[in-house]
Formats: sequence, structure tokens, C-alpha cells
Amino acid sequence: MTAPVVVGVDIGGTKVMAGVVDDTGGVLRTVTALTPGRTSSVEQLEDVLTAAVQDVARGAPVAAVGVAAAGFVDRAAESVTFAPHLPWRDSPVRTRLQRRWGVPVALENDATCAGVAEHRYGAALGATSAVLVTVGTGIGGALIIDGHVVRGAHGMAGEYGHMSVVPDGLQCECGGRGCWEQYVSGRALVRAAYGGDPAHGDGVSVTAAARNGDEAALRAFGEVGTWLGLGLAHLVAAIDPELIVVGGGVSLAQELLLAPARAALATHLVGAGHRPVPPVVLAALGPSAGMVGAAALAHDLVGG
Amino acid sequence: MTAPVVVGVDIGGTKVMAGVVDDTGGVLRTVTALTPGRTSSVEQLEDVLTAAVQDVARGAPVAAVGVAAAGFVDRAAESVTFAPHLPWRDSPVRTRLQRRWGVPVALENDATCAGVAEHRYGAALGATSAVLVTVGTGIGGALIIDGHVVRGAHGMAGEYGHMSVVPDGLQCECGGRGCWEQYVSGRALVRAAYGGDPAHGDGVSVTAAARNGDEAALRAFGEVGTWLGLGLAHLVAAIDPELIVVGGGVSLAQELLLAPARAALATHLVGAGHRPVPPVVLAALGPSAGMVGAAALAHDLVGG
Repeated sequence: MTAPVVVGVDIGGTKVMAGVVDDTGGVLRTVTALTPGRTSSVEQLEDVLTAAVQDVARGAPVAAVGVAAAGFVDRAAESVTFAPHLPWRDSPVRTRLQRRWGVPVALENDATCAGVAEHRYGAALGATSAVLVTVGTGIGGALIIDGHVVRGAHGMAGEYGHMSVVPDGLQCECGGRGCWEQYVSGRALVRAAYGGDPAHGDGVSVTAAARNGDEAALRAFGEVGTWLGLGLAHLVAAIDPELIVVGGGVSLAQELLLAPARAALATHLVGAGHRPVPPVVLAALGPSAGMVGAAALAHDLVGG
Repeated sequence: MTAPVVVGVDIGGTKVMAGVVDDTGGVLRTVTALTPGRTSSVEQLEDVLTAAVQDVARGAPVAAVGVAAAGFVDRAAESVTFAPHLPWRDSPVRTRLQRRWGVPVALENDATCAGVAEHRYGAALGATSAVLVTVGTGIGGALIIDGHVVRGAHGMAGEYGHMSVVPDGLQCECGGRGCWEQYVSGRALVRAAYGGDPAHGDGVSVTAAARNGDEAALRAFGEVGTWLGLGLAHLVAAIDPELIVVGGGVSLAQELLLAPARAALATHLVGAGHRPVPPVVLAALGPSAGMVGAAALAHDLVGG
């Protein structure tokens, strides 16, 4: 008989990734699928998730599933209250999926899951306090205090992307203006490099261009990295973490992003000459961090 | 023989307040003195503190003293590393005062002390998580997570006043620009009301004018309160606290300040329609909160 497996599923705005993950964070295999958009039905989304879990299990019994969702998850970690890119609205996702799949299901915000994974297995391993920022389509985040991930009074701690860093700044999809993620994201990079013309490509191509010495692309990283550092200075002023971990797709540019961010953090932090400035390091687990963290929460459910 | 007393001392930028405080946070008596400015010597400042402690003790034996300082206190709660309005610079204040006074001394940042007091005896009593913001000459703050005051990796959590809420905004004494306290403080109130002309008075007189229906003063509270709410939205996005407590001199204006702050918080918080917005309430302990919190830490030292 095949040994039971634990599956993590990360549901992003564009892509679903499911993986079999062992209890040390090791990823055995993964499958991906396109995320049905927000105009699709809840059933369509749940069908895609079900297929992904079955595919990746390859016939092995599934002991538990962890679900990382790009959206707000309530305090009880039962429901997705709001997810801009997904059809769930105040949906009791954990119970629905647990009933459908007949196994224990853990539900958590994707960036919180990434925080769990980086803290348990990655760049924040052993940290007493850390701020984790995920820079991709938008900004996600997680907060670690006293050695554990803080969920907040309503499950919404770490939603750094919608801090309004520029009053009356750029319009954000959230309805607000000047949100941090309007200045720090793959799209912000394309805008800074090429005025947002999608014909010039995406964050990945801007990164490639910068590595080849393209001046507009390098300038764009300088600009976006500086905004990253400015927002990090807010978080350091408020939380005073031991460590800052930056992950997400845009962080694959590594020092192109982090060097200007560190410089801006040191500049904007009050009394920087009189206090330690926390190190800003890259996430260790790459794009699978959310999935690995979700699986870690599922392992917790079945004690292994 | 007179029973021993515990004394709390709050050292602000303009005033020193010392009080005998019992172990339920009750203030038996206080004395105040002017704070020697930053151009005075460390000895002059410590002489003033010594006189204040002696005065308020009225000959009773002092069991312990808690010192709340308007400045950065290091992680070990031993030294004041930097205090813009005081002569201490990387000064081992706790040891110096303990040696001089011959009793156990606790040292902590003044806003952190106010947080301790509000959490133990005041408006945040019983809160699992809370953000405390003190609005006076500048902005101080404290952070409560999982039912206790978070000091941060370097003792500097809760320094909300220097979050740069306006990029390239108003010049701050800290060397930065656009710091929150440039927009939310007694001085910001006078500036918003009367262009900063000190002939028109201070935060207290603006408050009195607003209560009498003065339009410029009312408009100033609307403006400053809105900036308060905008910065609170940053903190709520990042930390998701159960409760926000606003204290400090400017908060004596009560709803004149809090009503526009609540409105701006609800406006600037992402997904405000899909999440609870934490209540914004007044601090309960008034201007003595720092002193009471310092005394509470001193009581902890002597177990009573």
C-alpha cells in the first residue's frame, strides 16, 4: 500500500500550485494549473483545486491538505472573506473543501503560509522576530513576533501591500490610493522601466534586461527598490524586527532589488546612526514557499 | 517606621514628573520639575531626577524606581541610546541611577511605559493585541501582541512617529522627511490652525478654540485627525490589532481628534467593507500613563 501523503496547495491570482511536501519542508513533486478568474464560480475554482490535489497525489492516499489562498482569511482560519482575484466572498472554504475531500484541511493566507515556511525551514529559521515581504503581482507579507507567525486580531496581520505610502498617490485596485504595492511589484517595475507598456514585457523581462545592463531597467530597479526600502522603514519603525526577508517573483532579481532597498531603509529609518538596521535578506524557498507553508500547517493537523 | 514606596519618573522633553504609585496603578502623589535641555550635562539631568524622587518620597524609604525616558532604550533596558531632547547619548542610565540611588531601577521608553500602564490598568486592559499611540509634542507608541508589550529586536518597537507618511514631505528634526509626527502633534495642530504662528498659542489653546466653535481650530482638528487615521491605517494593515488606544496631550481634545481619525482609518484601510475596523478609543490614564507604567515595572522588580 502506498504511504499517505500531505499536499500543499497555493492559490495565486494567476496560478494554482499543488505539491506533495514532507514534514521537513521537502517538495517531492508539484503540479500547476491556471486559476479560474474572479468571474468564474466558486465551484469552478474548487474543481480546479480538487483536480490538482488528485493529480499530484498520484493515487496515494491523502492524509491532509493545506490551502494557501491569495486573500483575506478570517481569524478562525475557516473562511476566505475577500480575495480580489478569486471568486470566494465570505466563503467557508475550509469546511467546504474538507467535506468534499474527506480529509483534514488547513486554510491560511498565502503570504502567511510563506512566512510559516520561511520561519520553519528557510531564511527566517530561528528568528525571534521578522518581517516577511513577498513582492510579485502585489505585496503580501507575514509578521513573526516572539518566534511565531502573528495572525492578527482578525487574521489580517501582514497585509503590508495596502499601506498608503503616498497620500493621494496612484490608484489601487483596492479602492485606495498610494498603496505600497502600486510602487513595488512586477507591474511597478514595468511602469518604471517602460512607462507600463506591456509590449515591453513583464517583471521577468525587466530583470533580464537589467542583468544585461539596460539603463532603463536598471533605473527601474533603483526606483522600485527605493520604494521597497521606504515601506520597510515604516515596518521597522513600528515593529523593530530582527530580520527582514524579501521573497516573491520580483525578488528573483536579488541584489538588483535588495541593494537600493537597503540603502533607502537606512536613509529613512529614524536615528539610523543610533540603532541597528535589520538585515534585509532574500527568501530561501522561492515561489513554492506558500505551498510549503500550507503543507506544514496540514502536517500539524495530522501530527507529522 | 514609614512604609517603603515605589516611585515612577517620567522624563519628557519639557517636564519631569515623579510619583508614588501603588501596585494597582494608583497615584498617591506627584511632583514635577522642568527637564534640563539637551545642552545641559548628564549630571544636571540626573540631579533633577534625584531631587524629584526625594521630593515625592517625602522621607519614606524608596523600594524601587521606574524611569520612563523620552528616547530610545536599548534591548537590555539598560541604556538610553539616543534621546533628541535629553543629554543622554549611549548612556548606561539604569546602572548609573541604581548606583546613585542604591535601589533597584527599571528603565524603559516613555511610550512603552504608557503602553504597559494602559494595558495593565487602563484602556487596553485585557486586550490580546493593541496599538497605543501617544500624541503630544511628537508621536510615541507601544505595541501589544499576544497579551504583552513587544519591545522589538532592539527595544525600539512602537516608534511610529517617524514613519514617513509623506515622501519628501515636511522636514523632521530626526533628519528625515514626511514623518508622521510632523502631521500629527500639538505643533501640527497650531500650524494647521494658524500657520504655526506661536502667538496664536499651543495645542491646548487650539483645543479650547475648537470647543468654542472657532472655524480655523475645528478645521485644524479635521486635518490632524485625518492624518492620524491615515497613519493608523498603516499600522492596522501591518499588525491587525484588536484595539487602538490614543493618548498624549493632544488626545485631551477627545472626539475633536478621534472622530476624523476613525473616518480616515475606515477610508484608508483596504477591504474595509470586508473586515472589522478596530475601535479607536481614548487612553484612560491621561498624562501620568508613562509614570504609572514605569512604576509598574519597578513594582515588578521588587515583587509587589
